[in-house]
Amino acid sequence: MSMPTVEQIQQILDPIFPGLMGVRLVTLEPERVVANLLVRPDLCTAGGIMHGGAYMAFADTLGAVGTIVNLPKGKRTTTTDSSTKFIGGAKAGTTVVGESVALHRGRTTMVWQTTIKSEEGKLCAVVTQTQLVLEG
Amino acid sequence: MSMPTVEQIQQILDPIFPGLMGVRLVTLEPERVVANLLVRPDLCTAGGIMHGGAYMAFADTLGAVGTIVNLPKGKRTTTTDSSTKFIGGAKAGTTVVGESVALHRGRTTMVWQTTIKSEEGKLCAVVTQTQLVLEG
Amino acid sequence: MSMPTVEQIQQILDPIFPGLMGVRLVTLEPERVVANLLVRPDLCTAGGIMHGGAYMAFADTLGAVGTIVNLPKGKRTTTTDSSTKFIGGAKAGTTVVGESVALHRGRTTMVWQTTIKSEEGKLCAVVTQTQLVLEG
Amino acid sequence: MSMPTVEQIQQILDPIFPGLMGVRLVTLEPERVVANLLVRPDLCTAGGIMHGGAYMAFADTLGAVGTIVNLPKGKRTTTTDSSTKFIGGAKAGTTVVGESVALHRGRTTMVWQTTIKSEEGKLCAVVTQTQLVLEG
Repeated sequence: MSMPTVEQIQQILDPIFPGLMGVRLVTLEPERVVANLLVRPDLCTAGGIMHGGAYMAFADTLGAVGTIVNLPKGKRTTTTDSSTKFIGGAKAGTTVVGESVALHRGRTTMVWQTTIKSEEGKLCAVVTQTQLVLEG
Repeated sequence: MSMPTVEQIQQILDPIFPGLMGVRLVTLEPERVVANLLVRPDLCTAGGIMHGGAYMAFADTLGAVGTIVNLPKGKRTTTTDSSTKFIGGAKAGTTVVGESVALHRGRTTMVWQTTIKSEEGKLCAVVTQTQLVLEG
Repeated sequence: MSMPTVEQIQQILDPIFPGLMGVRLVTLEPERVVANLLVRPDLCTAGGIMHGGAYMAFADTLGAVGTIVNLPKGKRTTTTDSSTKFIGGAKAGTTVVGESVALHRGRTTMVWQTTIKSEEGKLCAVVTQTQLVLEG
Repeated sequence: MSMPTVEQIQQILDPIFPGLMGVRLVTLEPERVVANLLVRPDLCTAGGIMHGGAYMAFADTLGAVGTIVNLPKGKRTTTTDSSTKFIGGAKAGTTVVGESVALHRGRTTMVWQTTIKSEEGKLCAVVTQTQLVLEG
């Protein structure tokens, strides 16, 4: 399969949930996906820091994109599991960076781990997810 | 502590991430929180089913609300961990129901588990999260 | 498929890891598995309470047994994910009870949740695991 | 705090659960712990591969050791959460290597991630755990 471009995937993301949140894809490689997200107030908790659910949705998007660009022809994928460790807060108005790397790319499952950091490189969250590879 | 009302909590949620998603709180009890969510297209994947990240963000909101209404005076909370099992899809245009129940309400941590079901009662996802109880 | 008996499964467990730990199967139903475990000192931490790893291994055994008794003919299973919330300690010399219930029994995956409690019914840990159903 | 030696920690592990399993500590550094484990038949499933519970107990041990050597004086620790992705099997009679690295070492929590590999370097499992830091 030829890799899709960042622009092609971004166009798919824009009308769906990652688009609602404002996820901006930056890098797309077979074992690594990077994106940015501006921490808008409507992605936050009442305390003005990025909502835990927004961390998880941001990461889930990157792990799914990573899996999709690795799928053999005629296959599809679904997330079966995701686990998150929340480590640090990201304030409204800042930008966070998510980097998802493949821990495993098998025929039946793929495992992707996404690290979310603040602009200054402070660790915010680590999300590990399992993607099942299914017949299309 | 007197329990806040559903309306009071809904007002807090509306300008933040749960509000962006359209989370509608229904029931608020010390050990149980229930809410509805209309599966809008912009909460979905490219396949037109609710995005895994939206499941997790919906659940995270309910577990956090459940913790907050149980916090002793002068304390605050943060989510440290969340783990999700994805079980079934919810189509765009339907409504899902999330019910979060307290598995543990301790002095140091609380554990809440949220079950998300379709309108017809089909199980969509189970999310279990740990909330740390901190000095305010 | 006819259900195997508690004794038949116990005989399989005895020479393998659950046997090393002393897991004693009590109840075996299609959606529920119950077992006891004496908290021997060699299942503990240096502080004399049941080791977190022993909780997880106990639960993993029950979820796997539950899946196996539900497998269609010619299929096999492997655990893909397990997540644990540790809630309370169990002292050396006491007995803990594990109860695993099926949250989902599908063609591709099954999800089992095991609750471990002390003799007095105090919650010790909750373990949720995903079992993949594979061609034999 | 002066770091304890591998031998000092091994002596603590031997009479408890990691000792029952045969965990052999190899390296002890402030941000990294390495150990070996011979996959004895009594650490396996009925299929003769390392039991999922043994993977989790092996990893839990390394993350706890890593936390303990980082604890400020007068503090203690407990695991609150652990999540595991199972990726590959390890056959009876082989040796697996576990390497645990600190993802976060904070005042309130520490997060350690353990990667378990076969002798040939094949990835078997990834375990991520949260350790709460408590007043002694």
